[in-house]
Amino acid sequence: LDYQHVQVPFEITLWIMLASLAKIGFHLYNKLPSVVPESCLLIFVGLIMGGIIYGLNDKSPPVMDSDIFFLYLLPPIVLDAGYFMPSRPFFENIGTILLYAVVGTIWNVFGIGFSLYGICQVKAFRLQDVSLLHNLLFGSLIAAVDPVAVLAVFEEIHVNEKLHILVFGESLLNDAVTVVLYKLFRSFCEMSTIKSVDVFAGVGKFFVVGLGGVLVGLTFGMTAAFTTRFTKDIRVIEPLFVFLYSYLSYLTAEMFHLSGIVAIIACAMGMKRYVEANISLKSHTTVKYFMKMWSSVSDTLIFIFLGVSTIGENHEWNWPYICFTVIFCLIWRALGVLVLTFFVNRFHVNTITSKDQFIIAYGGLRGAICFSLVFLLPDFHRKKLFIAATTVVILFTVFVQGMTIRPLVDLLAVKRKRESAPTVGEQIHIRFLDHLLAGIEDISGHWGQYYWKDKLEYFNSKYLQKILLREYDQPKSSIVLLYEKLERKHALELAEAGQLGHGPSHPSLLNNDRTVVTDKKLEDTLSPDVLENIQEILARNLYRIRRTGPAYSRHTLPGETEPVEHAKEILILRHKSL
Amino acid sequence: LDYQHVQVPFEITLWIMLASLAKIGFHLYNKLPSVVPESCLLIFVGLIMGGIIYGLNDKSPPVMDSDIFFLYLLPPIVLDAGYFMPSRPFFENIGTILLYAVVGTIWNVFGIGFSLYGICQVKAFRLQDVSLLHNLLFGSLIAAVDPVAVLAVFEEIHVNEKLHILVFGESLLNDAVTVVLYKLFRSFCEMSTIKSVDVFAGVGKFFVVGLGGVLVGLTFGMTAAFTTRFTKDIRVIEPLFVFLYSYLSYLTAEMFHLSGIVAIIACAMGMKRYVEANISLKSHTTVKYFMKMWSSVSDTLIFIFLGVSTIGENHEWNWPYICFTVIFCLIWRALGVLVLTFFVNRFHVNTITSKDQFIIAYGGLRGAICFSLVFLLPDFHRKKLFIAATTVVILFTVFVQGMTIRPLVDLLAVKRKRESAPTVGEQIHIRFLDHLLAGIEDISGHWGQYYWKDKLEYFNSKYLQKILLREYDQPKSSIVLLYEKLERKHALELAEAGQLGHGPSHPSLLNNDRTVVTDKKLEDTLSPDVLENIQEILARNLYRIRRTGPAYSRHTLPGETEPVEHAKEILILRHKSL
Repeated sequence: LDYQHVQVPFEITLWIMLASLAKIGFHLYNKLPSVVPESCLLIFVGLIMGGIIYGLNDKSPPVMDSDIFFLYLLPPIVLDAGYFMPSRPFFENIGTILLYAVVGTIWNVFGIGFSLYGICQVKAFRLQDVSLLHNLLFGSLIAAVDPVAVLAVFEEIHVNEKLHILVFGESLLNDAVTVVLYKLFRSFCEMSTIKSVDVFAGVGKFFVVGLGGVLVGLTFGMTAAFTTRFTKDIRVIEPLFVFLYSYLSYLTAEMFHLSGIVAIIACAMGMKRYVEANISLKSHTTVKYFMKMWSSVSDTLIFIFLGVSTIGENHEWNWPYICFTVIFCLIWRALGVLVLTFFVNRFHVNTITSKDQFIIAYGGLRGAICFSLVFLLPDFHRKKLFIAATTVVILFTVFVQGMTIRPLVDLLAVKRKRESAPTVGEQIHIRFLDHLLAGIEDISGHWGQYYWKDKLEYFNSKYLQKILLREYDQPKSSIVLLYEKLERKHALELAEAGQLGHGPSHPSLLNNDRTVVTDKKLEDTLSPDVLENIQEILARNLYRIRRTGPAYSRHTLPGETEPVEHAKEILILRHKSL
Repeated sequence: LDYQHVQVPFEITLWIMLASLAKIGFHLYNKLPSVVPESCLLIFVGLIMGGIIYGLNDKSPPVMDSDIFFLYLLPPIVLDAGYFMPSRPFFENIGTILLYAVVGTIWNVFGIGFSLYGICQVKAFRLQDVSLLHNLLFGSLIAAVDPVAVLAVFEEIHVNEKLHILVFGESLLNDAVTVVLYKLFRSFCEMSTIKSVDVFAGVGKFFVVGLGGVLVGLTFGMTAAFTTRFTKDIRVIEPLFVFLYSYLSYLTAEMFHLSGIVAIIACAMGMKRYVEANISLKSHTTVKYFMKMWSSVSDTLIFIFLGVSTIGENHEWNWPYICFTVIFCLIWRALGVLVLTFFVNRFHVNTITSKDQFIIAYGGLRGAICFSLVFLLPDFHRKKLFIAATTVVILFTVFVQGMTIRPLVDLLAVKRKRESAPTVGEQIHIRFLDHLLAGIEDISGHWGQYYWKDKLEYFNSKYLQKILLREYDQPKSSIVLLYEKLERKHALELAEAGQLGHGPSHPSLLNNDRTVVTDKKLEDTLSPDVLENIQEILARNLYRIRRTGPAYSRHTLPGETEPVEHAKEILILRHKSL
């Protein structure tokens, strides 16, 4: 037996296998996932496994390595999030999201840091040796909402799109702020004196870290799009480039101390439309499938590891500090959301309701990022207390908030994701209004989102498409692409229903050049009775297609599920045939 | 700049990126790959890169690590080979393949080992310090034909299926023999005295290593098939299991010193039909696509690394030893093939022609496996000579033999892969004869391949399918599955040609229960003129489909390409409609 030789890949494979089997296990019992979020179940599995390891070895089970988390587990999830990000609601609310992500996070960091410092001054709690800087450092790591935890919970509760993108967007973009504040306070902890220059440099760093991340991401995204122009003869490695370039953007950003999360999101959002147009249909299926698969496995592993790492002797228990951390996290987030939303609502017509505000505040889940950051802290005598407090906050938010948010959403009757699809009429109106508003903004000299969107679209069709797309001389509008996609789906459905293949379809008989049958003639040969029947079948079949849209689930690819597209299909087909 | 932190994943990603870009580069110029095999070009790229690294650093570039090769690069290629292995020709020729793989390899090892020892006795060559055991050890690593090199060359020359499977099957199955002989001689080198017991134990090990590998592989394969029974609600992680289980089978076999290559092939071949039936269509596309992608990247990396590792100061040059190694490799292989084929032909009706024998002998390419094994040798003073000889043999076989084999195949007019598809009549006859021969073998008491195939099929449908398939109560015959697949393809083609979607197809109008139009009535309403036209269109359309089959290429998935299936489609459709 030569275990050592294969140890590394063998153990990695076994962990992934365990995670996958755990996932299968939960889904075997359909009732379980509908009550308890998967993340809770996975942490629970992790706790049990950690307990077993602890019981057998009598020493703390291995803690999730921060490097493994940041270099291997986090990128697939963020890539998935960025690639499937609904870009319209994201850009429509970018201002609000940035406000929450930047100002909100800073508010939370300082709020939690200062009030915990206040608690430390109470002599009875025996915490006087925790300095203000350490409290702020702790605040900087505990304040950030975690995208992995938010995604895991919000994908199951189906709130309306705007609410979802506000919480989720914030959790992604606050990474830049967290990185800067965390590193700033950590370096302050190690310095003997802090000059005011350092503080100003810290403020400047925000922009460098965030915008630098965007720049790195876009550069790699454009390169990826450009590369896929040349893969026509070698389709089989196309999917690779999507993964390689986005991973490189993450690593490069991390290398330069920029925000890797922001970089990979910019990369994914930037390359998506060009790559999709360049690569083959099968490659695209593979890309989407693998992205979902990888992120799903990463996410499972993270929660299991979180559970495993909780068990052990890393903790220093101090009731007041830990309890007040949980309380302050809740209070400061609630206050922050209230104050920021007050300002947001003053400048927006489409305001954020108080119910939405409650869900935004309540959905501020903490997760594995805090956990990894707390282990990366420099060694000092109260590190174990911080670890304990972080663990409790994570478990509290994931278990208590994660499990109660669904009933609360039901109770408050928060506006859900609309079930019915927007009609073609609505779609056309939205497009029309976009153009109109862009024009109004242009005339009024107010450079708002519509103005920029219009300019970007112009730049894209004038320059970017020509460079990045293989078949740039035939730019297809999104509606044509959608139509093609729906045609393919329809064809597959017909094939599976056995209604195809015994001859060319009816219209091809009509339109074929070689046939002598003209439309006129066929209409003559078919009796009105027959024509009526054809129309009836048409209507029924189309209706059938509309009904087959399954409910949204995390574990299916979006293309398969959105009922929006089914309705679109019907209307487009009808439109075409008219 | 914090390079160290991201170094490992960054460099791995960059290497893969380099490999992918190199692949794209070659395919940009269509003429290049048709003259020079890709493997040669990649080694060439590697040589240049190695030269650059050597020139810049003035020290040898890093050598491909044997662990990386055996644990990470080899498994994807072997998995791909096993999963897409055409099982019928493989099992039809299993006896011949095993004879070449086992007896042929032993013949080569001892032939090369002893004759090189003979060369070492010539005083003028100054090689007297190389012992017989060392020569045999060297023989054991240089004798084995390499599956990666064989695959790379043979996939481009399109020889007939039997010839291909003979060379390729041998290259895969000789792994068991190579492992045993290599480890045996290596342990003999370290022992002071060799007992005859050890030699007999070595012979017994053949069976343990080979059959053990098969057993491990089949166990994991069946478990994989069983697992995919339960993935219905969580389709997105289905593809993962195919990869995880086959990799585990490889690692487990390696852990127990069994043949990992044999294990992974048994696993892939065993699970294939059950997994395919259980998983969704999209998952299956993803599995196939990723397998091809991974193996293609691994293969590229291996050849590039081979080139890079060649440059440097690892070599001890000795003209006679190196030249005679090349010559003996050629002679002993040629002799071995001649002698073994003589025996094979005596027992077979369908003999191997002398042209085929020449190609079998000439196609015995060496590759990265030899290269990795020679670096794993225990340190002794002539190791560098062995490294030099191995490198020369690999470069000679890949460049000289690899580049000349295509012209030779043309020159000798070796029977090619048949371009036209077997007709349905042929297919039915083959099936019929299989059953007939199984019956004859049963009656005559001769337990040949047909008997065993029949028994296996019975066991499969009686027990295995019920355990491993999700929908075992509806066993679909392969022809029905094929039909469904073709229907889907046809539907997609129609959709892309824009001939679909404006209504249900013509036959559905005829067969729909709800319509009052009966066949009779419609036939009345349509004039004979129209009907004739419909038939003409039918014939033309079907013919069009037949013509669209592209040529076979390494970089496409087989499902897309085999013209066999197109012809089948036409005939099945016609059959159905009649």
